Amino acid sequence: MNFPSKLVEDAVMEVAKLPGIGKKTALRLVLFLLREEKDTTADLASALVKLREEIKYCVRCHNVSDQELCSICSNKGRDEQVICVVESITDVMAIENTSSYNGLYHVLGGVISPIEGIGPTDLNLDHLIERVKEEKTSEIILALSASMEADTTAFYITQKLSILGVKVSTIARGIPVGSDLEHTDEVTLGRSILSRVTYQTQ
Amino acid sequence: MNFPSKLVEDAVMEVAKLPGIGKKTALRLVLFLLREEKDTTADLASALVKLREEIKYCVRCHNVSDQELCSICSNKGRDEQVICVVESITDVMAIENTSSYNGLYHVLGGVISPIEGIGPTDLNLDHLIERVKEEKTSEIILALSASMEADTTAFYITQKLSILGVKVSTIARGIPVGSDLEHTDEVTLGRSILSRVTYQTQ
Repeated sequence: MNFPSKLVEDAVMEVAKLPGIGKKTALRLVLFLLREEKDTTADLASALVKLREEIKYCVRCHNVSDQELCSICSNKGRDEQVICVVESITDVMAIENTSSYNGLYHVLGGVISPIEGIGPTDLNLDHLIERVKEEKTSEIILALSASMEADTTAFYITQKLSILGVKVSTIARGIPVGSDLEHTDEVTLGRSILSRVTYQTQ
Repeated sequence: MNFPSKLVEDAVMEVAKLPGIGKKTALRLVLFLLREEKDTTADLASALVKLREEIKYCVRCHNVSDQELCSICSNKGRDEQVICVVESITDVMAIENTSSYNGLYHVLGGVISPIEGIGPTDLNLDHLIERVKEEKTSEIILALSASMEADTTAFYITQKLSILGVKVSTIARGIPVGSDLEHTDEVTLGRSILSRVTYQTQ
């Protein structure tokens, strides 16, 4: 790609470092910014820099936060006895959007993956054990993705927590709402039978 | 979407103003920047601000440029007698990438579109007429897109230039290389027959 200007080239190269954005898209975005008012670019740049400079991580659950404690951990209306363990911040947001959960969270920052060189000490795992000891937690809900690495992580957490006498559960694997059985893969369908839920008939 | 932090929300809202980027993609990009080093965000922000603050437009052809004259206009090896008229900077880049053209350019900045309220005075049209008068241009090549608005603009330019005795041509409309006749639309196929090229047999 021949760039008419070094400034355009530099901007395109930086934008193209973002995931899922190639050089052509980056060029389109850069030319959009050139057409818009200067303020659009200034606002975008300052919001990103401000975010990266000032962002805090909640000292309790490792969620992103503007204060020491995030808005969920500092909310007195939440059930402090339940901790939902997730991989990332986006998972917290996804569960919050369901409005089906009123406990606290613990963001691991990933899952154990020997291939990628991520061991238990690279995650916020020790802090989870500490929290369970200190906060009189009654239940840990594991809301991890359905991968081999996540299963390993879940197994590790369960082992670590077994001596503390806390109840450990995992979110249900099954047929997504709106799907039909015919097109569901065997593993999911198999798990949904094993994890069947008994109707309360009386 | 519930955001865990005002900083994240502000950043997502700014990124989502870019064309073709929704809130979900914006959140993904913002969380990527949070995971990366601070320098990644700082470099991105400064490249964009520097671009927007320091970019110049070539005084001769209106292409983006780092100097008063762009690299094409200041290149003595180019044929100064031919001007290729295009809508935007991306068109200049596209034609440059073909390596099939060695003349100069003139970027209009759009096409005449009464519906969008764009008249001849909103484009760099008067300057084109001036250039033709001053630069002893022998040929104007119109490389506009194949739309009603572009055709109107081409007609307007041709009318204005007719009294100056300059040759005006337009890029060929026809079957793209690699396409077959069967799947080409009637208008394009019709034009390709009307604009047929005679083989030089002797």
